[in-house]
Amino acid sequence: MAAQPTRADKFSFGLWTVGWNAQDQFGSASRPWLDPVESVHKLAELGAAHVTFHDDDVVPFGSDDAERDKILSRFKGALDETGITVEMVTTNTFSHPIFKDGAFTSNDRRVRRYGLRKVVRNVDLAAELGADTFVMWGGREGAEYDSAKDLNAAHDRYAEGIDTVAAYIKEKGYGLRIALEPKPNEPRGDILLPTIGHAIALIDRLEHSDIVGLNPEVGHEQMAGLNYTQGIALALWAGKLFHIDLNGQKSIKYDQDLVFGHGDLFSAFATVDLLENGFPSGGPTYDGPRHFDYKPSRTEDFQGVWDSASANMATYLLLKERAQAFRADPEVQAAFEESGVLELAQPTLAAGETLADLLADRSAYEDLDVDAVAERGFGFVRLNQLALEHALGAR
Amino acid sequence: MAAQPTRADKFSFGLWTVGWNAQDQFGSASRPWLDPVESVHKLAELGAAHVTFHDDDVVPFGSDDAERDKILSRFKGALDETGITVEMVTTNTFSHPIFKDGAFTSNDRRVRRYGLRKVVRNVDLAAELGADTFVMWGGREGAEYDSAKDLNAAHDRYAEGIDTVAAYIKEKGYGLRIALEPKPNEPRGDILLPTIGHAIALIDRLEHSDIVGLNPEVGHEQMAGLNYTQGIALALWAGKLFHIDLNGQKSIKYDQDLVFGHGDLFSAFATVDLLENGFPSGGPTYDGPRHFDYKPSRTEDFQGVWDSASANMATYLLLKERAQAFRADPEVQAAFEESGVLELAQPTLAAGETLADLLADRSAYEDLDVDAVAERGFGFVRLNQLALEHALGAR
Amino acid sequence: MAAQPTRADKFSFGLWTVGWNAQDQFGSASRPWLDPVESVHKLAELGAAHVTFHDDDVVPFGSDDAERDKILSRFKGALDETGITVEMVTTNTFSHPIFKDGAFTSNDRRVRRYGLRKVVRNVDLAAELGADTFVMWGGREGAEYDSAKDLNAAHDRYAEGIDTVAAYIKEKGYGLRIALEPKPNEPRGDILLPTIGHAIALIDRLEHSDIVGLNPEVGHEQMAGLNYTQGIALALWAGKLFHIDLNGQKSIKYDQDLVFGHGDLFSAFATVDLLENGFPSGGPTYDGPRHFDYKPSRTEDFQGVWDSASANMATYLLLKERAQAFRADPEVQAAFEESGVLELAQPTLAAGETLADLLADRSAYEDLDVDAVAERGFGFVRLNQLALEHALGAR
Amino acid sequence: MAAQPTRADKFSFGLWTVGWNAQDQFGSASRPWLDPVESVHKLAELGAAHVTFHDDDVVPFGSDDAERDKILSRFKGALDETGITVEMVTTNTFSHPIFKDGAFTSNDRRVRRYGLRKVVRNVDLAAELGADTFVMWGGREGAEYDSAKDLNAAHDRYAEGIDTVAAYIKEKGYGLRIALEPKPNEPRGDILLPTIGHAIALIDRLEHSDIVGLNPEVGHEQMAGLNYTQGIALALWAGKLFHIDLNGQKSIKYDQDLVFGHGDLFSAFATVDLLENGFPSGGPTYDGPRHFDYKPSRTEDFQGVWDSASANMATYLLLKERAQAFRADPEVQAAFEESGVLELAQPTLAAGETLADLLADRSAYEDLDVDAVAERGFGFVRLNQLALEHALGAR
Repeated sequence: MAAQPTRADKFSFGLWTVGWNAQDQFGSASRPWLDPVESVHKLAELGAAHVTFHDDDVVPFGSDDAERDKILSRFKGALDETGITVEMVTTNTFSHPIFKDGAFTSNDRRVRRYGLRKVVRNVDLAAELGADTFVMWGGREGAEYDSAKDLNAAHDRYAEGIDTVAAYIKEKGYGLRIALEPKPNEPRGDILLPTIGHAIALIDRLEHSDIVGLNPEVGHEQMAGLNYTQGIALALWAGKLFHIDLNGQKSIKYDQDLVFGHGDLFSAFATVDLLENGFPSGGPTYDGPRHFDYKPSRTEDFQGVWDSASANMATYLLLKERAQAFRADPEVQAAFEESGVLELAQPTLAAGETLADLLADRSAYEDLDVDAVAERGFGFVRLNQLALEHALGAR
Repeated sequence: MAAQPTRADKFSFGLWTVGWNAQDQFGSASRPWLDPVESVHKLAELGAAHVTFHDDDVVPFGSDDAERDKILSRFKGALDETGITVEMVTTNTFSHPIFKDGAFTSNDRRVRRYGLRKVVRNVDLAAELGADTFVMWGGREGAEYDSAKDLNAAHDRYAEGIDTVAAYIKEKGYGLRIALEPKPNEPRGDILLPTIGHAIALIDRLEHSDIVGLNPEVGHEQMAGLNYTQGIALALWAGKLFHIDLNGQKSIKYDQDLVFGHGDLFSAFATVDLLENGFPSGGPTYDGPRHFDYKPSRTEDFQGVWDSASANMATYLLLKERAQAFRADPEVQAAFEESGVLELAQPTLAAGETLADLLADRSAYEDLDVDAVAERGFGFVRLNQLALEHALGAR
Repeated sequence: MAAQPTRADKFSFGLWTVGWNAQDQFGSASRPWLDPVESVHKLAELGAAHVTFHDDDVVPFGSDDAERDKILSRFKGALDETGITVEMVTTNTFSHPIFKDGAFTSNDRRVRRYGLRKVVRNVDLAAELGADTFVMWGGREGAEYDSAKDLNAAHDRYAEGIDTVAAYIKEKGYGLRIALEPKPNEPRGDILLPTIGHAIALIDRLEHSDIVGLNPEVGHEQMAGLNYTQGIALALWAGKLFHIDLNGQKSIKYDQDLVFGHGDLFSAFATVDLLENGFPSGGPTYDGPRHFDYKPSRTEDFQGVWDSASANMATYLLLKERAQAFRADPEVQAAFEESGVLELAQPTLAAGETLADLLADRSAYEDLDVDAVAERGFGFVRLNQLALEHALGAR
Repeated sequence: MAAQPTRADKFSFGLWTVGWNAQDQFGSASRPWLDPVESVHKLAELGAAHVTFHDDDVVPFGSDDAERDKILSRFKGALDETGITVEMVTTNTFSHPIFKDGAFTSNDRRVRRYGLRKVVRNVDLAAELGADTFVMWGGREGAEYDSAKDLNAAHDRYAEGIDTVAAYIKEKGYGLRIALEPKPNEPRGDILLPTIGHAIALIDRLEHSDIVGLNPEVGHEQMAGLNYTQGIALALWAGKLFHIDLNGQKSIKYDQDLVFGHGDLFSAFATVDLLENGFPSGGPTYDGPRHFDYKPSRTEDFQGVWDSASANMATYLLLKERAQAFRADPEVQAAFEESGVLELAQPTLAAGETLADLLADRSAYEDLDVDAVAERGFGFVRLNQLALEHALGAR
């Protein structure tokens, strides 16, 4: 059985995950919304270190200032009592119908202005609570119909919104970084910034791109059939992996938000292997919270909610053990060698070698025995089977 | 019936498209490979303005210099006779088994060096033939298994390879720009740079990113369930739409390479609308060749090959007419207005307005009648129906 | 512009379509639920001939008998005033949390019994209102997890439930036929009877299979990447196409329920072509209502709701005109001939020919010029381009 | 590490799997085709019990009778020497261009007659070699274009072809059963009989349906986003699971044919659990060969080919051990109980109870405390976590 989670594991949960009332597209709530204070206490007990939330998860939309203060004060009390910290805050710019065409990119300028105000207000709260990361998921930024959106203007407005918030963070001297969360579709037919790559492309064109990075979610990339581990590897390589959302998804379909590992289990092993052990030849690493963004299934009662919260952590810790054993196994290291996995860290041009030198190197082209090189077996299937057997605890 | 294509339409065809012998994963060739010279003549006759090719499409892999010269001389003769020009050249780094684990990112350094040599040699040919664009599709750069590739090293090597080629182009003073072609999978399980976004993210980190952009293909984006028009809009916005590959794909499955419009027809209308008419409120535009990268179905004989080549152009021209009528229709312009499509070009902050000003604007937040704003109907379905009826020529 | 719909067009709408309050997985309602009486009047005005509904669409879940009678009496009044008829009734066994693990296949026997009662009660109402078809969409019959369901028992229970209802219909002498509606997933991770094929397989094993058929929905088949027209063709061939649900879906993703034609437009053309014109060489046809099961987008107000209702009918009528012209075009008939489309109706063995005769026919095998036969070009691309140009009204 | 495979495990391999020359859609062969005789010897050594093949895998297309006899005699020698038996034979009706529009459903009647002859000839060979199962994968039966196929005629011809072969088998008294292999697409845009369900629907309408069943392949169902275990459960329930094709696939994309378990690993656990342990409350079981239909990756040399063959068996045996421990665990049995998994085997109507009795049972409906029943937590997440931890060998 898996190890018990501790604070050192940096496990973090969105309050909207365990708190979800299980209302979905086709049915009404099967559970009441949970009191955030109760969630904080229970998550602390189960071994989590952090919580995260949307503004509306804690303070209902439309609350007046007095209500808001009272709610927040009680919430902070729960944090103090438990030692749980808030590592990330995000803004709900997708539930209320005012945001039905988006917030930063709504065709209605009044909505864009309102959305910007709501986000900025939440930045203050995030800073006040000591969060490091401010996530933006623009779930309604997009369209169902190609003619409904001027896509050049939409990207302009998206950039304007993010840069405005980033400038505010800098001006205030807050210790926050923004993390964008890509998603290909649902609830919009096509969402802007559909993948990790698209989000980086936008970030690179911001004025304040230095404090803007990513919060990639397992299921969101898999909804486009993309490899999550490959995606966060690009984000790491690009210096933009600021936060992560771990969960489970089975193939290309609606957003399932299953427990981490309950989707593509072997892919989850690869993700944990990268997060815990880094790239085989070194390089940038991720050191932030292990944040779960999942939904306890609608079939579950509160016992099931807490069982599912624990399942996320248990699976992560189990895969972490297996990934450590995988890397430590001399047979695996030998297989890495044989498969050329480590050889890829060698530059194609040697140190000091110019292209002109390469062009003059007949052994590289004119005299290369192409067929002999082509015959090399890479042994990838065997290496993958070693990984699989380690994942299964069979070595 | 559609207008006849002329050279002014800038239609361009890969020689590997009409030339394909129709051998696929499950069957042998149903047609012989076409002589490129014949293809050039026939495409000229049908109304194309340009051709493009992989090195190996014209000069068989492994040809010696004498053969190569002879073949190229005959090929140039055909160009001269027809007035067809070569607007783009690309390199085959995926068919020969030496590239089975990729070229620039193969785990085998000998292959990386060989691949770089093959590409550079082809750059010289592209320049010699007066091409503007040098496409790189790294179809074998990727993996089937997560453990098979050090993804940090892989992105380093990919960047090294592209930058080396770009530096060479600059050093030689060639008038070429590099265009990367993203694809999510097939023939590898997961390909590096799977989407338009991922490719821009890599490009942004190159030393010579100024001459590196994109060649997005309709079907490749749709294989990830992504909206092609939205993808090229991002590329335009980012200043990176250097070239396009038009074809057809039906939903998420193997790479179909159907005739343009024979996949998602209404999406093709949106693509042509953007390419021909630009964004509703202006912005960057695409002025390059309309390049088709498709495969005549394996069921077709040569008559079918040429019918399919013509079908690409006929459909494009038909959709162009429809898109022009769509934009010119006053009812559509009124619907754009009502749907706020043009309103999105207005910055969220007014000219000269600061965030502090917005924070002080009570009408934007504290005093906004949120429910009233939320009630606005955007009329997107009606606008889309207008687009559909224009696409169908019913208005 | 499209023709005006009339009652002869047999257009039918679910009351839950125009009535939907636009609450979705990620947001609250953007419109109030519509009064069914208002919907009936408005749909009549727009040209519809029929309405359909779930019990709970008209009579809120948990209403007592007195309320129910009052509501139904008012509803029948609207039908009488407008001449609109109820052609189909279906039961909501998915919204209330009691059905969170399904109705006929819930692991909880109390739920199965309750669900059966709810369905049977609704059969009486369907009969009373003169409906022909009783649809069953088992949206919650399924699981997210493989261990959660005994799949043999689940199919037994599903069959038991349907057969019990069918027996009741026969016993009562009602003029109703049951139509199952397949869907691959959402709201469950995997739904039982995920496609047209799976549903027929179950039906074929029922005791009362003679009055059980299908109600296939465009988007549901496309969510599995399947060709809807091919699916209903199989249902027709199998004698099981009892009803249809027309709408729009773009590729494999969450259930979009777009307006008919606003998804894969060219596929919609093929569907209308089959429904209106039948198979090229004859065979079974569909003569029932053209029923739309779509959702007006959440961005729309009531004007948008009615515009979207009209758009379904307008697009259908437009494609019908185009499909009729397609079939009437002598060039198309010649192309059918050339492509062998009509040749496929000829049995492989001639009338009276036995397999022994074929085995003795050397011209069929031993003496066949295989390569010559293999060279035949089928001309499918040209035929498809003819279809496309007819769909676009360009011929 | 996994147990050594023995003949009692009934592992079976297609000769086209290990024998594949690794030529794919985008590249030429990276290995020579293997001599079937060598494959038989090697597979015997690795622990397989059976081989299977397409006619053309052993006897090249177009061989004359003398060559054929010589080849077959040598092949039978290898079987005798090793004790390997041929449990299944299948016919290649997809590689040669004569089959480019299908075999039994080609629009060209000459092809249909030729295809039928080729299949019948191969039935004789299958019988001669003592096979039990005769697989038909109609990989080219389908279309890219909706207008290209009369789908009513196509299903007629498909049925005619299969029934003709089945009648021949009966007439000859061969101990063979036919197993159809569904696939949604590739190499055709849409293949007829795209899923397990569609194939059963066709089978049910055959004259000789008693000897026609299914050979479902893991990856083929997953290419449509369908749950393989659910699919074979339906086939078992329907009495039609005659054979299986085990392999691996990652999400919805081209047909990957990975090693079993190298795709969706946790789904593979569920499949093995069903195959080895049956349904939780009993019911029909599968007792046939465990047949692998996969492709050794193109990156592999012959060492990699044999490593990959072994990996299939090792993973299966590992998952079998884990599935047995899962079912034997009292905590799991208790969880089954709590989740109602076993309760589903109880009929909804009690023994002897009529629907009239149920309608009279007020406790089932009128007096049921709906909300109390709705509150039941099913504990599915915990049960799934138990399954996951057993799969990972962590319990």
